[in-house]
Amino acid sequence: MTKNVLQYIEENRSLLLDELMEFLAIPSVSTDSSYKEDVKHAARFVEEYLNEIGFSNVTQMDTSGHPLVYGEYVEAGPDKPTVLFYGHYDVQPVDPLDEWDSDPFEAVVKDERLYARGASDDKGQVFMHLAVLKAYMKAEGSLPINVKVCIEGEEEIGSENLYDILQAKKELFQADLVVISDSGMVAKNQPTILYGLKGFTGIEINVKGPDQDLHSGLYGGAVRNPLMALAHILSSMKNEDEVVLVDGFYDGVEDLTEEERALIAAVKGENYEETTGVKETVSEKGYDAKEHTMARPTFEINGLYGGYQGEGSKTIIPATATAKITCRLVPGQDPDHIQQLLKEHVDKVAPSGVEVEVHLEKLSSKAYKVAPDHPYIQLAATCYEKAFEKEAVFVRMGGSIPVVEWLDEIYQIPIILLGFGTPEDRLHSPNESFPLDSFDKGMETITYYWHELGNM
Amino acid sequence: MTKNVLQYIEENRSLLLDELMEFLAIPSVSTDSSYKEDVKHAARFVEEYLNEIGFSNVTQMDTSGHPLVYGEYVEAGPDKPTVLFYGHYDVQPVDPLDEWDSDPFEAVVKDERLYARGASDDKGQVFMHLAVLKAYMKAEGSLPINVKVCIEGEEEIGSENLYDILQAKKELFQADLVVISDSGMVAKNQPTILYGLKGFTGIEINVKGPDQDLHSGLYGGAVRNPLMALAHILSSMKNEDEVVLVDGFYDGVEDLTEEERALIAAVKGENYEETTGVKETVSEKGYDAKEHTMARPTFEINGLYGGYQGEGSKTIIPATATAKITCRLVPGQDPDHIQQLLKEHVDKVAPSGVEVEVHLEKLSSKAYKVAPDHPYIQLAATCYEKAFEKEAVFVRMGGSIPVVEWLDEIYQIPIILLGFGTPEDRLHSPNESFPLDSFDKGMETITYYWHELGNM
Repeated sequence: MTKNVLQYIEENRSLLLDELMEFLAIPSVSTDSSYKEDVKHAARFVEEYLNEIGFSNVTQMDTSGHPLVYGEYVEAGPDKPTVLFYGHYDVQPVDPLDEWDSDPFEAVVKDERLYARGASDDKGQVFMHLAVLKAYMKAEGSLPINVKVCIEGEEEIGSENLYDILQAKKELFQADLVVISDSGMVAKNQPTILYGLKGFTGIEINVKGPDQDLHSGLYGGAVRNPLMALAHILSSMKNEDEVVLVDGFYDGVEDLTEEERALIAAVKGENYEETTGVKETVSEKGYDAKEHTMARPTFEINGLYGGYQGEGSKTIIPATATAKITCRLVPGQDPDHIQQLLKEHVDKVAPSGVEVEVHLEKLSSKAYKVAPDHPYIQLAATCYEKAFEKEAVFVRMGGSIPVVEWLDEIYQIPIILLGFGTPEDRLHSPNESFPLDSFDKGMETITYYWHELGNM
Repeated sequence: MTKNVLQYIEENRSLLLDELMEFLAIPSVSTDSSYKEDVKHAARFVEEYLNEIGFSNVTQMDTSGHPLVYGEYVEAGPDKPTVLFYGHYDVQPVDPLDEWDSDPFEAVVKDERLYARGASDDKGQVFMHLAVLKAYMKAEGSLPINVKVCIEGEEEIGSENLYDILQAKKELFQADLVVISDSGMVAKNQPTILYGLKGFTGIEINVKGPDQDLHSGLYGGAVRNPLMALAHILSSMKNEDEVVLVDGFYDGVEDLTEEERALIAAVKGENYEETTGVKETVSEKGYDAKEHTMARPTFEINGLYGGYQGEGSKTIIPATATAKITCRLVPGQDPDHIQQLLKEHVDKVAPSGVEVEVHLEKLSSKAYKVAPDHPYIQLAATCYEKAFEKEAVFVRMGGSIPVVEWLDEIYQIPIILLGFGTPEDRLHSPNESFPLDSFDKGMETITYYWHELGNM
């Protein structure tokens, strides 16, 4: 059965690639309201595609922001599993535009990669699924399983309306498993099963000193410098062994088992020094870089500013200083509780002479982890390995995908993160791209997976 | 003899004020090359003024930047002291322009203050001297002492060419004392003798981490965060008792004597809480805010930045982090040596996983201090007190004026800092102003001082 589907894909590869390029050409930048019509255009593209391949109940669900497109194929019947496929058709802004080697909205193939905004995140990966659905319908006239497709347009702006829709449409979206292709492999052509994601929380620290910037000669020695106060606060929160010093931060975090250490050790992931340009990796004492990024919580200052930033010097004591901090959390850590612990720590160590305020980041999420030996996971690994002709690795990732936490909370069904991106894709950056290898073998993987799920 | 001079000033006050307003109307912003012609215009104003009142040898000394205007009156003869008067005719930029209540280059009088860019720093104070010279020449036809006037146009850009001129013109400029009016009183109408200035040095710390900003989810736990590295470095340099922790920083600093503590205690200076808006002052352990600002070295972070500064959060590990630091130094501290100590400290504590570079601030200067009981100082105090009808206070200031260090080094004569500004003048800020009280009593003080110097 998969033979005909794969043959259709092979014979129509250039047509499918053209269709993807048409999808990529729509500048559906959700963060910028001046692209509102383009975002709508991208939603229409998905809607029409689903209609054309014969999906039913195809609708655009309006939100206060951008619409979510839904469509379903439920003719495989109640005996067959139902997959809820989630993806997003919106993309990140493109600036700085002058760092792109080609037009971000005119996809080009170069060195076996497809270059365009959204090529990897997430239009390219969403389209692979649409293409496989089309191939099944064209080659076989049916799908071996039931598939509910749910493609939103607000992922890059925090999926603002998705939680409410997932709650409201629980019956309509109900499925046996969720499949998401919005992530990556640890290396090109290395099948990667993502069985855990980190949670997320954050705070912003605002330190207020004098009413206005002061002359450092006239007032140095009389007032507390907000930047130095902030440096003291921050350095009290994590030590040079990369251990977070906030009381209770690690409470409830499960120890890394020997089994999991072995799984992580088996991952031949990216060479951090090569991809990031650092001379040496640095991670939490007792854990190597892979273990820390995958399975241990992190604490990062994302931004810090205060005072003079121009050339040369300006001899002031700044009026304010600000630090933006986010943490990636692991199972056992509650994001709201961690946020409170961070706030309490800052309040406790805040020095005299300045006012220190802690703002709690609104978007926070719990970590997600599914047992790597779950049958749906194992089946995905088998299909992946067959298409890529290489043994799969099982990884947890440091990133956070809010939709995964929400789906877990509301639907309580396994979520299969079947990503085909590569570390070189430059997501959110100029010259985003996606390897054609991933495009071809990804469609093959999905074809096998639907088939195998139908045989379960 | 002073009676006629003071009478001339009184009778011609509105003429003198008009002349000052004409001077203030010239936008001689030295930092911005688009004002180059205006800066020349201000130099011409000073040149013409000196010529008109009968000074000789009046010249514009060209530099690679803006000219210095020189003129002299040496007819008092070799028996009389010679004063070298230094000032500057250039001003700071005016932005943000929309925060000014009136045109910065169209002086207005409001609530007994003259509002304009340069009203206090330094055109207003320079002009008081020009006016007194004019008054002596008009009322008496002569001056009781020899006066050499030296007004530069590059003070606000670091007096780039002044050091070389002071070296080259040592014979021409030779005098018995220097008088500078480019500073302020500790409070309005409080005669203030400034007998010490701090020295100055600085460094910039650049921390380089990954090649580019990294996704904190994918790389958090694998690389050192440059901002956290910088927080650790900075917090190791000064503790929360405001004690600098850099080895050798305090070496050679003379202890504050009981006499000097008494002089400082006698200063009823500004209310720091009121003028800066802080709830409480913070100063080096063992010293109060006045003692620290006047007589103890300081270490301030003037600016710090790295990573994301926009609204909300952006989950990155930034590629770089930068801190700008300057120190105010006291006698006994060599600026170059202190700079080296700072650099050595940073190099020593720099954590692994990041590259830390220290750039040495080019402009540095030694502290200056003259014995408060020097006869020229005491005489200035007497004249000051007579004009303001209030006992003078003797202060050291946290600020640094490079020209003072250079004059001290090259000429080795007493430097009398006879400033008439007030803490409310808003130097370098929108709505700069100068009290008319200072204008009137300042001219009176100078009139007395020249007379008394002539009688010594």
